[in-house]
Amino acid sequence: MHFTPEQRLDDGILEREFTLGEIPGILWTPEAASATAPVPLILLGHPPLGLGTMYPRLAARARHSAAEGIATATIELPGSGDRPHWPALDQAHADLRQAMQAGEPVSDKIVDALILPLVAKAVPEWQAALNAFLSLPVIGGPVGYSGGVISIGIRLAVVEPRIVAAGLFAGSLVPRVMFEEARQVTIPLHVLLQWDDDGNDRQAALDLFDAFGSKEKSLHANMGGHAGVPQFARDAAAQFFTRHLK
Amino acid sequence: MHFTPEQRLDDGILEREFTLGEIPGILWTPEAASATAPVPLILLGHPPLGLGTMYPRLAARARHSAAEGIATATIELPGSGDRPHWPALDQAHADLRQAMQAGEPVSDKIVDALILPLVAKAVPEWQAALNAFLSLPVIGGPVGYSGGVISIGIRLAVVEPRIVAAGLFAGSLVPRVMFEEARQVTIPLHVLLQWDDDGNDRQAALDLFDAFGSKEKSLHANMGGHAGVPQFARDAAAQFFTRHLK
Repeated sequence: MHFTPEQRLDDGILEREFTLGEIPGILWTPEAASATAPVPLILLGHPPLGLGTMYPRLAARARHSAAEGIATATIELPGSGDRPHWPALDQAHADLRQAMQAGEPVSDKIVDALILPLVAKAVPEWQAALNAFLSLPVIGGPVGYSGGVISIGIRLAVVEPRIVAAGLFAGSLVPRVMFEEARQVTIPLHVLLQWDDDGNDRQAALDLFDAFGSKEKSLHANMGGHAGVPQFARDAAAQFFTRHLK
Repeated sequence: MHFTPEQRLDDGILEREFTLGEIPGILWTPEAASATAPVPLILLGHPPLGLGTMYPRLAARARHSAAEGIATATIELPGSGDRPHWPALDQAHADLRQAMQAGEPVSDKIVDALILPLVAKAVPEWQAALNAFLSLPVIGGPVGYSGGVISIGIRLAVVEPRIVAAGLFAGSLVPRVMFEEARQVTIPLHVLLQWDDDGNDRQAALDLFDAFGSKEKSLHANMGGHAGVPQFARDAAAQFFTRHLK
């Protein structure tokens, strides 16, 4: 992991950009962390819109966590932002748009083509990044995963034992095979669902929540549309991580 | 409202028993409240098992609220505890038990007979009690309603404009007519659902949540069975009231 010269210190939080091989990312640490014991870490997931687009929302989540003494980090998804285009993924997105514009149901084939290769490629990258984060003196763990493409969160919760708690956003398409994988998840889960998210399959989200094998799992459904998660719901998600990571 | 001589001061909370006509009840106020400005109030709903049986859980909720500077109060339900038996309600309970023991579906007729007369009689009693509570110098409002028979909470939320927020427990039978009534609810709602509550109709709870007309409504689904609401979920419900009443 190579830190770029870009870094900002603001509101008690240190923001550093880095590259891990070809993958750009951002690490946020509470300013006090360098002087104290190593801190817990939350991996900040995000939709495949590019870190540049997602930066304001990611930075807001990072500031919230830093105030709780928790570091946060994120990496660019394959095919997104400044990373090389991924033609198969672009095609899957085009197929999805076409189906939606035609008012057709989104087929399993489209969902699988859109999500499964992304999960297969992104998850090992997040794990490699986690290796790098945990090698830094400032990061101690425990580690949580939060938000973004829910299937990436599910796979990480299953395969990565260093992740002890996950906050998931049930707002994206989920391949059928992931419902089976959800049964293998056993870590504490905090699942956000926007009840009036018109573009989202609410029943699928409820079925997915039901499938999770975790003994501690909470579903928080709120109003406000896809992007309108209320502040109190964000606060509750932050409290979930504070409860499990601090 | 006549306060009985029974009163206890414990952990900074004053507990006073009272009768309102034939109806017994309990009022809890933060000890500091008498010396400061009038405080908000939460009406503590409960299942029809009698205040004696419910006392430990009600007192725990009262202590939680008192720590936030919020008073709480409850009254006995008609036909419960030390109040006169209500033969029609006893019969409905007997019919329910018989249907459940026979493994039969619980008919709309049984649900209506069990819930609708209770709602019709209890709601005006809670309103009369609210008049009495708000006449006390220590109680200022705003007022919330929390828990208990969900249909009583729905009716109160519709007919009682002084109730500005409600925390509901989606764990009991709901007559069909109440789904229509739910559409008329517009105050902020915090709905608890025990996802693995085997004796509860989960789909009915989700349909009811969907029906509520409130712009701010949150569903918190957790594990732990009917009576096993996790402490963090109780804390979140308390935060909901603090947000809306303080």
